[in-house]
Amino acid sequence: MAPVFGGVEGGGTHSKAVLVAADGKILAETEGPSTNHWLVGLDKCIEAINDMVQRAKMEAGLDPNTPLCSLGMSLSGGEQRDAIDKLIAQMKERFPTLSQHYFITTDAIGAMATASDRGGVVLISGTGSNCKLVNPDGSQIGCGGWGHMMGDEGSAFWIAHLAVKTVFDARDNLVAPPHDVTHVRKAMEEYFQVSDLMGMLPHLYTNFQKSHFAGLCKKLAEGAEAGDALCRYLFTQAGRVLAKHVEAVLPAAQEPLLSSDLGLPILCEGTVWKSWELLKPGFTDVLDKVASSDKFKGRFHGYSLLILQQSSALGGASLGAQSMGATITMDYTANVNIFYRHTFNSSQ
Amino acid sequence: MAPVFGGVEGGGTHSKAVLVAADGKILAETEGPSTNHWLVGLDKCIEAINDMVQRAKMEAGLDPNTPLCSLGMSLSGGEQRDAIDKLIAQMKERFPTLSQHYFITTDAIGAMATASDRGGVVLISGTGSNCKLVNPDGSQIGCGGWGHMMGDEGSAFWIAHLAVKTVFDARDNLVAPPHDVTHVRKAMEEYFQVSDLMGMLPHLYTNFQKSHFAGLCKKLAEGAEAGDALCRYLFTQAGRVLAKHVEAVLPAAQEPLLSSDLGLPILCEGTVWKSWELLKPGFTDVLDKVASSDKFKGRFHGYSLLILQQSSALGGASLGAQSMGATITMDYTANVNIFYRHTFNSSQ
Repeated sequence: MAPVFGGVEGGGTHSKAVLVAADGKILAETEGPSTNHWLVGLDKCIEAINDMVQRAKMEAGLDPNTPLCSLGMSLSGGEQRDAIDKLIAQMKERFPTLSQHYFITTDAIGAMATASDRGGVVLISGTGSNCKLVNPDGSQIGCGGWGHMMGDEGSAFWIAHLAVKTVFDARDNLVAPPHDVTHVRKAMEEYFQVSDLMGMLPHLYTNFQKSHFAGLCKKLAEGAEAGDALCRYLFTQAGRVLAKHVEAVLPAAQEPLLSSDLGLPILCEGTVWKSWELLKPGFTDVLDKVASSDKFKGRFHGYSLLILQQSSALGGASLGAQSMGATITMDYTANVNIFYRHTFNSSQ
Repeated sequence: MAPVFGGVEGGGTHSKAVLVAADGKILAETEGPSTNHWLVGLDKCIEAINDMVQRAKMEAGLDPNTPLCSLGMSLSGGEQRDAIDKLIAQMKERFPTLSQHYFITTDAIGAMATASDRGGVVLISGTGSNCKLVNPDGSQIGCGGWGHMMGDEGSAFWIAHLAVKTVFDARDNLVAPPHDVTHVRKAMEEYFQVSDLMGMLPHLYTNFQKSHFAGLCKKLAEGAEAGDALCRYLFTQAGRVLAKHVEAVLPAAQEPLLSSDLGLPILCEGTVWKSWELLKPGFTDVLDKVASSDKFKGRFHGYSLLILQQSSALGGASLGAQSMGATITMDYTANVNIFYRHTFNSSQ
């Protein structure tokens, strides 16, 4: 049998698995729930991965008892060494026929490996957020990705939380809201099915589910599109803080990343990017200021925002294959689309 | 047998129970773990309460199978009606000989009932934070008390979290720290027994315990006392935001609260107030500005900070007795101590 490589894209809300041949042909794709082990626990994480991959084997007409050559997993929450080692050890033990080799990296690195082998910035804003700069020589530097207790700035969770916090602070007279909260309060009450702020407590504690909480963000995007000033403000703030992640990693960028025709390539992953037009005012404003700052004047000429046309499970599969000395042929140009280009005035 | 009334003070880290006679004599006092049901769950909460009260009965030489007349509980997290009703229903079912009547209020209202029957402001900064203004006519208005996911500003948890977040943001180059982070990072690494930021993730997610996390605050207070600039800054910020809670409820204050000789009485509850000298610069600055603002000029003449000399379990017991038409004689002046007085210049 020709070698088959598996890849997993693990998000805070949804996950995907892909099986791919050495020539890059996709043999099967499946979907599943969150596989962020910090959110769902180790057991549910590995069960969901096994389930997606085994379904993919069957979809591809493969024997589920024949292990894959490798399984490369690009997981949100896949950064801490101890946790990763434990995850792989338990997968091997519980599901011995799943795969021969395992490889785990973060969602950011998996996305980058899907888009390019020449580096760039990955900026994730899904349920959570994260930013990584990968240099052409493979060196990396990150900002964020610490989860909702220590950041996630600019993510769907963060936008939803900022919205709810604005309503709470207005009710408490603790902080005056920047705009009228009526629409956001109604959206919150409808989404969480509550009639007052007290009703929010179970959603914040006893029954807290990050991905459900983050789901309010979609309603806020609808409010912003309909013109509500506070909703628009929330997305502008998200755009600002996402751009600040780029600013944070920019000093580490090697020259080729800044001097390409595209400007700095920024790969945008996660559903919040669907609201790019709402993020845009804050995002572009911050990077305009960075470009004209003393530190980057004349070095930072522009940037392009890219979106994947394939699941970052594919990049995970590619890295998984590489980790055991194999290669999957990747058609990078087909895997990405440029949705925004920005060139700074040379007079800046 | 003479009637015996019970009271409970339920915190995010520790709890206390008290048994008291109608003349105000304290018959027994016991201690226990956190009884915040949002943090420990309903089962552990009621088991801990039952355990403390039954031990108190034995300490007082009472038959544990004879129910108390009433049990008045002053609980952090004791605000949401549905949750309170469920808590009382389960206590009655599981521990039928504990008490005849039950009453639950918040930690803030229990503290106020220990200190005075004429109202004032209660400002809690323990594991979490909360603020309530109680008017002489009994009307109330609150600010905060929503827990660590939606506030707790100025609490031990908040100070600890702000410290850790400052270290993370400095490492990420996302936000420049206001002062050198070396001491705070070391305190964090020692307290949580970690060697890098990744090591913090289990403490923030899988093994998160609010009261343990908040425990870092004590180390930061030690750092502030030893002169570390960032530690001092954190407590100044906590002082500022605690004063902002007072500012938030102040518009609802009835005249007698503002015109007494003491100025506005502010009852300070929780262990963070042990670091009053560290909170003071931020706290006094904010209230100085409030007093000289157009809104409060000539109305807000000064304030006194009071600390309880008795557990707020006593106030809980008093309110519990009242709720069934009984009365416990309270010696309010013996129950509080004034630790700071501030009079604004009349020229302000």
